[in-house]
Parts: sequence; C-alpha cells; structure tokens
Amino acid sequence: MINVKFLPAAIEIKAEKGENLLEVARRGNVFIDAPCNGTAACGKCKVKVIEGNVDTNGSHHIKEVEMKEGYVLACDTKVIEDIIIETSANQSDYLVGMKIEDLSGPKDQAIFERARAQVLNNGMRFCSYIKKDYIEIDIPTLNDNISDWDRIKRHLRNNLGYSKVFCRLPMLRRIPSILRESGFKVTITHIPRGDSRTTIVNMEIGDTTNRLYGVALDIGTTSVAAFLVDLYGGKLLAKASAGNAQMKYGGDVIHRIMYSTKKNGLEKLTYAVIHETINPLLRKMYSDAGIDKNEVTAFVAAGNTTMCHLLLGVYPDNLRLEPYIPAFSRAPFIKASELELEANPETFLYILPSIASYVGGDITAGVLASGIWTSEENVIFIDLGTNGEIVFGNKDYLVTCACSAGPAFEGGEISSGMRAAGGAIERVEIDKNSFQPKIKIINNEEPKGICGSGIIDLIAEMLKAGIIDRKGKINRNLPSNRIRFDEYNIGEYVLAFKDDWDIHEDITITEIDIDNFIKAKGAVYSGVSTLINSLGMDLSIIDKVYIAGGIGNSLSIDRAIEIGLFPDIEKEKFMYIGNSSLMGCYLTLMSEDARRKMEEVAGQMTYIELSTYPSYMDEFISACFLPHTDIERFPTVEKKLQHQDGSN
Amino acid sequence: MINVKFLPAAIEIKAEKGENLLEVARRGNVFIDAPCNGTAACGKCKVKVIEGNVDTNGSHHIKEVEMKEGYVLACDTKVIEDIIIETSANQSDYLVGMKIEDLSGPKDQAIFERARAQVLNNGMRFCSYIKKDYIEIDIPTLNDNISDWDRIKRHLRNNLGYSKVFCRLPMLRRIPSILRESGFKVTITHIPRGDSRTTIVNMEIGDTTNRLYGVALDIGTTSVAAFLVDLYGGKLLAKASAGNAQMKYGGDVIHRIMYSTKKNGLEKLTYAVIHETINPLLRKMYSDAGIDKNEVTAFVAAGNTTMCHLLLGVYPDNLRLEPYIPAFSRAPFIKASELELEANPETFLYILPSIASYVGGDITAGVLASGIWTSEENVIFIDLGTNGEIVFGNKDYLVTCACSAGPAFEGGEISSGMRAAGGAIERVEIDKNSFQPKIKIINNEEPKGICGSGIIDLIAEMLKAGIIDRKGKINRNLPSNRIRFDEYNIGEYVLAFKDDWDIHEDITITEIDIDNFIKAKGAVYSGVSTLINSLGMDLSIIDKVYIAGGIGNSLSIDRAIEIGLFPDIEKEKFMYIGNSSLMGCYLTLMSEDARRKMEEVAGQMTYIELSTYPSYMDEFISACFLPHTDIERFPTVEKKLQHQDGSN
Repeated sequence: MINVKFLPAAIEIKAEKGENLLEVARRGNVFIDAPCNGTAACGKCKVKVIEGNVDTNGSHHIKEVEMKEGYVLACDTKVIEDIIIETSANQSDYLVGMKIEDLSGPKDQAIFERARAQVLNNGMRFCSYIKKDYIEIDIPTLNDNISDWDRIKRHLRNNLGYSKVFCRLPMLRRIPSILRESGFKVTITHIPRGDSRTTIVNMEIGDTTNRLYGVALDIGTTSVAAFLVDLYGGKLLAKASAGNAQMKYGGDVIHRIMYSTKKNGLEKLTYAVIHETINPLLRKMYSDAGIDKNEVTAFVAAGNTTMCHLLLGVYPDNLRLEPYIPAFSRAPFIKASELELEANPETFLYILPSIASYVGGDITAGVLASGIWTSEENVIFIDLGTNGEIVFGNKDYLVTCACSAGPAFEGGEISSGMRAAGGAIERVEIDKNSFQPKIKIINNEEPKGICGSGIIDLIAEMLKAGIIDRKGKINRNLPSNRIRFDEYNIGEYVLAFKDDWDIHEDITITEIDIDNFIKAKGAVYSGVSTLINSLGMDLSIIDKVYIAGGIGNSLSIDRAIEIGLFPDIEKEKFMYIGNSSLMGCYLTLMSEDARRKMEEVAGQMTYIELSTYPSYMDEFISACFLPHTDIERFPTVEKKLQHQDGSN
Repeated sequence: MINVKFLPAAIEIKAEKGENLLEVARRGNVFIDAPCNGTAACGKCKVKVIEGNVDTNGSHHIKEVEMKEGYVLACDTKVIEDIIIETSANQSDYLVGMKIEDLSGPKDQAIFERARAQVLNNGMRFCSYIKKDYIEIDIPTLNDNISDWDRIKRHLRNNLGYSKVFCRLPMLRRIPSILRESGFKVTITHIPRGDSRTTIVNMEIGDTTNRLYGVALDIGTTSVAAFLVDLYGGKLLAKASAGNAQMKYGGDVIHRIMYSTKKNGLEKLTYAVIHETINPLLRKMYSDAGIDKNEVTAFVAAGNTTMCHLLLGVYPDNLRLEPYIPAFSRAPFIKASELELEANPETFLYILPSIASYVGGDITAGVLASGIWTSEENVIFIDLGTNGEIVFGNKDYLVTCACSAGPAFEGGEISSGMRAAGGAIERVEIDKNSFQPKIKIINNEEPKGICGSGIIDLIAEMLKAGIIDRKGKINRNLPSNRIRFDEYNIGEYVLAFKDDWDIHEDITITEIDIDNFIKAKGAVYSGVSTLINSLGMDLSIIDKVYIAGGIGNSLSIDRAIEIGLFPDIEKEKFMYIGNSSLMGCYLTLMSEDARRKMEEVAGQMTYIELSTYPSYMDEFISACFLPHTDIERFPTVEKKLQHQDGSN
C-alpha cells in the first residue's frame, strides 16, 4: 500500500499502486474540484506534488513552469509511491463561505418580504400542511378499556372532527409509553387531508404546541441552501448554505449523471448530498436555533430534476439520453428516515414538482416566489445557476425552457473562474487608455479567481476598451503587459499579477474562456428570444425581467446587456429576486394554500424543448457574438460602442 | 469463559461463570421448554448434566433418583465450569411436527370447504384486495416526454380509470430500469381503494398476471401455521407450521409479557417469532411451491392481542396491568420490509382486528370462518388454544369473553404434558377392572408424553373407573401398581412404564396435574355459562357448538362432556372446525368483501370482562368438580356414573 498525504488538510490515505489520484482524494473526502469529472478536459483538478514521484501526463492546462514546480492534473495521475500532495487553497474554499442570502441586509430582507407577499397578497393563508394539537385524553378504566390507539382516534373524532386517523408502525410503537408518561396529556403533530382525515407523525409529552418547526431546502448543483422555519408565523430561526459535496463527482448535471452509472456511483452521489451536505447544514441550524432534531416535522425541498433524482437515489441516466425522460416529475411524499435526513424519523419530505427533464422543482419554486403566476404584466424569469432556465408569461399562461448554459456563470469552464465566495473578483472596471483594471473582491481578501458577475463585467469592459472585438478575439496590437499570447497564439488578459498580490499564479481570462462564456450567454439570450418567439411575440412584449440564482446581487444589468446576456430593454424593468428556489420552498412549507397553487401552476406550465425547436440553433449562433450578430437588437449597446469607437 | 456443550444438538456456547443455564441455552438458540419463564415453577426445563459440576437447587419437580442421575432445572442452575448438558429429546420435538390441518384427509378438506362456503354462500366475491394488471405503456418520444411515473399514471387513468395512483420510494427507484428492460410492457401489482385510487406495490417485466400470491398466517402462542395461497381461485400451494420460537421465553401470554419488559426482551420476542418461526416457514413454503419471495405481495395474519403486539414490536405490558389496555386493536397496514418478513419488500401486512385485550384477531378470524355471523341458530364458539376464548350469538348479535384456562389443553402445566406432536398419547381407555390403560400415540411412535385430548380421555376414564373421585383425588384403596403415592402423599397414575417402552421416565398424571386441568376446564365451562347467563339465557338456548383450536381432531366430545369441559347437550350439536384463525386469515386474504364484513362484525361484537363479572367466580368454583358441583347440569354423565357405581 502507498501512503498519500494531502496538504493543507494533512489527511493521509492508503492507496493501491497505480490508483488514480483523484479517486484517492474522493475516497478520503479530500475535496478537489473536478467539474468535468476526471476527463482531463477542464483542468480544475490541478494539484502540486510536494514529495515523491507520480505517473502523470502533461496537459495544456499546465504550463511548462508549473510542470517544473510539480503541478499535475489529479484526474490524469497515478500514484506509484508514497507522496505528499498540496491541493489548492481555492479547492476547499468551494465548500465554505458560499454567498447566499444572509437576509441581514435591507436588500435581502426586501427580497424575502417580496416573496412572502406572493402568498399574503393573493388571498392565501400562512398555514402549513402540518399541525400540532394539544389533547387531554380520557384515562382508561375497567369500564372504558379500549386500546390506546382507539382512544386517541375516539378523542380526535369527538373533539377535532377527524373521522379517519392514521399512523405508521414506529409511531404506534411509541404510543403506550408516551400516553402513560404524560398522564394522557400529549401534543400530536399531524398532517390533515381534507376535513376528516389526518396522519399522526409525532407525539410529545405535555403541551408543546408552540414549537412547530420545518426546513426549506434548495438543492443546487453547485450549492445547497436551507432555512429553519418556525411554522407559526414563518420566522426564520436559522439559515445555512454549503457547496454541494457532489461537486467532487462533476461540476454539472451531465457529469453527475455520467458518474451515477459507474459502480456505486449513484449511492456515492446520494450519500454526498445527504450525509456530506444537507445533514451538516441541518445540524448547524438546529444547534444555532437550540432545537432538537425530533422537533422538525416538515421538510420541503426543491432542486433541478437531476438533483431530485440523485437526492432520492433514483437513476437519472435516462435524462441524458434521447428522448430525455425523467423517472418522475412529482415524487411521492418520502419519510425523512428513508433518506436518513436528520429530523424526526416520521417527518415527510415534500419535493416540489419538476416541469421537464431540465426544468426542475427549483424553477417551480421560483415561479411561485416570483409571483409571475399572478402578474398582469408579461414577465420573463431567468434563473442563472449552473444551468439556465427561463419562464415567460403572466397570470394567464406560462411557458418555460432550459438552455444548456453550463456552469460558466458560476465560474465553471473558465480558467481562473470560481464561485461567488470570498476572494472572488466580483466587479471589474478597465481604464480605456491604460487598460489597467480596477477590481472589487468579495470580503476584500486577496484575489483567488473571478466569479460570474466579475466575468460579465470583465468581458463588457474589455469590449468597450477595444481589448476584444465582438467575436471575443483579443486585439493583437495593443501596448499593454496585461495582454499576452502563448505558444499556440492564444491570447489572454491578466486581471491580477501574482507578484502584485503575492498569489501563486496570475488571474487571467483567455480567448478560450471568453469563447466559453459567449456560448453560455448566447444560450441564455437565444433561449429568451426563442421562447418569446414561439408564442409569436417579440422581446418588446416584456414588461419585467426577474433574475434569480446564484449569480448574486453583484450582477450589473448594464454590463449583462452590453455583452448580450440579457435583451436590451430598460434597466428599470429588471429585478434581482435572489434564491427564488429557496423562497418558493419556504412558501410551500408555510402555506398549504401556496403549495396547492404551486402544484396547479406547475401542471399548467408549457415546456418548450429548445434542442428540437426549428429556429433555435440559428438564434443561438447569432447570439454567440458581443452583444449579438444583429447589433440592431442592442441599440443602447450599439450607441456605446459607436461612442467608444468615436472617442478612440 | 466457560464452555457449555448441549447434546444431542452438539451446540457449544461460551458463558460467563455464574450465568444462568437457561439463559445460556436461549442465547445459543438451544430450545429448552420453559412455560413458566424461568421461575422454577413448572419443572419443564429439566436437563441432564452429563459432565462437570453446576451450582443448582433442588426442586419438587426432580425426584431423588433423577437428581442422582444429574437432572437439574436449567432455570435454577448456574454454570461454574465447563459442562456437557443433555436436553430432552422431547424439548426439540416441540418445534417440529406440530399437528395442524394438513388438509390431505377428507375431514380436513371438509373443514376447509366449510370455511370457504362462508364467503361463497353469502354473496361475497372471492376477489383479493390486491390486483395485478398487465399494461403496455406508450414508449416515450421527444414529443411525448413526460416522466416514467407520469406515464404510468396517465396509462392507468386512461385505460383502467384510476385517477390517483401512488407508490413509495423503493418502488419508484425500480421503475426506470423495469420499464426499459421490458420495452414498457409490465405487470403491476396494486392495491385499489375505491374505484379511482390505487397504490402500486410491485412491477414485473412482461405479463405475469397469472402469478399472484399471498400468505395467511395464524400466530398462536404455542404454534404458528401458514398457508401459501394462489390469489386467483384460492388454491393452497403450500402449508407449514412450527412451534412459536417465543416458547423458550415462556409458555403463555402472561410470561411472554413479563419477559418483554426485561432488557431487550421485546426485541428478542419479536425476533423469535419473525426470524426463528415465520421466516423459516415462509422459505419452506416458497421452496415447496417453487415461487420467488418477491412474488408474494399480500399478507394476512391473526393472533391473540399479545401475539400481535409482540409481532409488531409494540410493548404489551399494559395488557397485564389493570385496566388491561392494549396499545392497539386495529393495526395500521404494515410493510413486510418494516418487519423483515420474507416477501416482496413493498408487501403490506394486514392484521385482523382484536376485540379486547384477551380476545384477539384469531377469534375475529374464527368468527368469520365459522359463519356464526350469518347463523340463524344460536352458536357457541370455543377456541381451545393456549388460552380459551368464547363467542356466543347469531346473525343478530355476538358476545365474547376470554377465560384464563392457561396452557393445559396443550399439555402445559401437566408434568408429562406435551403438545399434540409425534409421540404424544392422544387417546386413552382404562379397563374398569384391571385399571390397565389402552393408549393411542400420534404417529405410533414410542410415547413421549400426553397431549390435551389424551388428558381429557385419561381423566374421564379414571373418573369412570373409580380411580379418582369427582374432586380429582385418587382412591387410596385400589389394588394396582399403576397407582402410587410419593413422600408427600401426592398420588399419581402411571400411564406408561418406562421399562415397558424403553423410555427414560414413566409417563404419569399426578393429583396436582388433575387439579390444574380441572381448573382449566372449569374456566372454560364457567366462561360459557356466564356468557350465556349474561344475556339472561341458559345453556338450553344453544343450537350449535363449534370447537376450534390446536386441541385437534382427536378430541372426544363425550369425554369432554364427562369431565365437564363442555355443557351436557346433544353430541350432534358439536362440530370441530379446525384452526379457524388460519381459515379466517385465508378468507380475508382471498376476499376483500370478506375482509370488510369481518371488520364490520368485529366492530359489533360485545366483550364481557369475566374477571369483573359478579357471578363469575362462583360459577368457576362450582365448575372445578368432575363434571360439576351441580351434577344435575350433566344428566347424561350422572347416568353413566350411577351405572358405573351400580356395576361395581
């Protein structure tokens, strides 16, 4: 056996000779980002061999100087003797400090209150599907000697009007002792259906009706966010987020699906999201709020269709193969204990329904929270996450589609890209004369990479400064040490020199990165225009644009229009609505009325499959330009570019 | 550690010095009968120390000569060094070869057909609550790309009229692969409720609609019996029975309840009945019938209230404490996998409802199978198992009670008593002059003991031969080597001398045994008379007597009347209806109509608590006589005894 030691975590793992270094790290739960899932394509699994020799291949992701320093791609390296490996500090940062709505700022509070208003302003009650009732049951005597369970049912029939009452075996087993310990005074937690039926899921000694808690859970491909909620009144008691630990098995849903078909792949993915991601979040929230896990009796979760399959341990592979069929779009109610979630074992988990293979419950949740379903105006809703999903419509109709934008908005497939965590460059300005950048870094740390909003700014500024043309190609004739070309003549712009910041490598954007990003933004723009065109309308019909997703508050709408990510309409029509998936879960958890409305709305949404839509491919190719092949679609940008041309 | 070896099984178990020998045997799964559950009261756990010394106490159950040979009570013995123990061959016989309806004889066939007629002759359909349907589902295309689960639901809605279809997570997980392996041609097994709702519990490739199987299960305190049933037509494919492995923890429900409150006691009892009793029976039946356990998708079980609690792992201790409250009388539907039963994991187990703490679902089943509920005549139904339960009534009303008869009818608390297995003396005649017995032994083996029907015969014959008086005391002045008295002047009659049969000890009945048996029969008789008196009627109202339970076919009605177990009415009114609990389970499994009828009948039965019924104790004491204090109640017996007195 070979000893593999990983720094800075100082984790030592035994390995077989010839074992793949990335697999060794996964086995030991050492996080190495691998969005392409070990195909040596993305270059993100770069690690440094500090001591010992390995059997590795070169890669265009590793520069000559790096190779001399010992850098290798973990996915393309075999261990052959005892080694010490240093993983990038960046790597482990992916799992912590993810930016989500912390709701402490007034802007976040406004987003939260806006979502709540979708329920409150539409005649729906804030009344969860789960209830608590304190009951004092008649004590048994020789003359009244019916069974404990019959006694409970009789009480509920006579006092609360439930004629049919159910429970499951684990609950039944606890009844005799709870009744006697409490002197037959207990609080039941139950799930009514209709007026006369209910299912008891928990029973506590004495009156605990003031403690009724639930969890809302947004399960993203990249990150998972959760609220712990007081179901009376809806106060948030705790919130938490973390990177989805499945990331080590691939950055996007396609790579995850591919990994799921490997030996034990599905089990590992399910384990990663439940035991390495959700349960630690839950424990943290319970501890922060000072409640016991057995007091948590309601769970609502949303995620894209693949995430829902992986959460439940259902093979998602048919999602990837034509004709792209999910196993389910509406999951049955599932017991927390079936998934080993940290909660009362009798807790039911409700998962928001998906619309299609690539429009999941996170979008259903977003539709609910955004309020499109009640809007008189025509709204376009764009969720910029690891993929891009779009909904268009108003209170009368809703159409939706997914565009394969990939993970670029979260820094994926960009050489210095990273998620919106501490150290990420989130805003960029470039001086048009000196080509020097001005950058803003999350938490004011030393720069580690550049996140989605930063990339948007950067490309828009490079375009306006004339560093790149509308195809994204770098001008070969500019006098700047920040612009350089490698042996293959691929150009790059240096956003941060390593010597300026004392970091291990320069933070740059290459022509390949820009090309990747243009494809991503082109996919979103062409998705928006195709969706609206499919209804025989054009972009002028849009009254409002809601932007949701992990791209975050820092996004500049101006810059996003300048690169052609969003259509060129009045800036006032745009609104950032935060993590609308999590907000929708919260509303579903809090309001049975909202849950029903959401199910009704989900059932009425029309899905447009872009990949088979006749004009989509042309639209997409036209959109792979800055801002667009047809510049007339972007009159304000055209003006800016003309002005810039004129000024030069 | 000490080495304890048990013969004849040659099982070796490690034990702590000072550990109780009975506990060591239980731990190693060596069966030693212990009806009194280790209180040194019954003497049934007698074993022989072949080698080594033990720390033991004497007992009146062990004769001086036996003590010299090394016999000890396992429950009252501590291990102190390496030993070899011989358990009685009898002991392990309890677990095999129990006599149950093998349905091969015409008498058994008649019992079976009689039970089936209760459904067929009363306008009810033989149609199980579980169904199979073969469906050919539309294959998905890009234009018809709804999820697998939605596709199944759509098919069932459009083709079979089910508007609401449910499944649970394990089923959902299997759907994508089954659909694709089968080319979307599958057979679903499902449980409809009403016309429009159903729950899918299994899915198989291709058309398997001709294979739909269920199991009926009678869980007795002493023995467990099962049928494997073809749910189309109701044919019995296999049957099996075995002793309830809980016996090692006590012979009757009270001792089992007491054991359940010990550390891990409940878990051990539940494990014993499921893993050591039911699952081996199931495996045997599946193998006999050549079916796979996953094809078994319906389970119906009945047992007394305590057995049902122990089966489900629900504490039964409140059954034993005033006011004697069960945790439940109607159990929820339970998944086979929750109990680790050998069946398709999605199979639901239905447990027949109990009426009261000591009138269980086995009696509900018996009422259904016996047909009292549809009878114009007044029927008394007596189940003679480990306890005695009685039902009286007709199609208009039904009353029921339990009498604490104990295990005497199955040989319990009788020194040479045993269950009706091979080697049991089941019939006895005694020559009035020579006092020599003529015996009939089950399977014509060498005699090992005497079972319930044999004890009834023996006591009746001893009474008629003048060996005992009507109090059960042995005549001190009879010239027979079969009649003898011990040092305490307790008399006994020798039914089989060990030297005549080459067995290890004489088979006898003592005055203590007779006294125990008289109390048991007195409990049943006084139960019958009290129950009928409670309605303001007397025994002359009885049109029919149905006898059910493990006492079996060999029971002589004449002898049972002679000792005063049954009331002295015309012999033609009696009918033995076999294991009516198992028959009732079979009917419930086969017919949803019958299940509903049975639930309705169960809900209408009136329970009479004898222990608090004013006249019961007087009735009981009067009945503790042969045949009764008031001989005029038994005119035919009076005549026989007078005739015998005259003839002597």
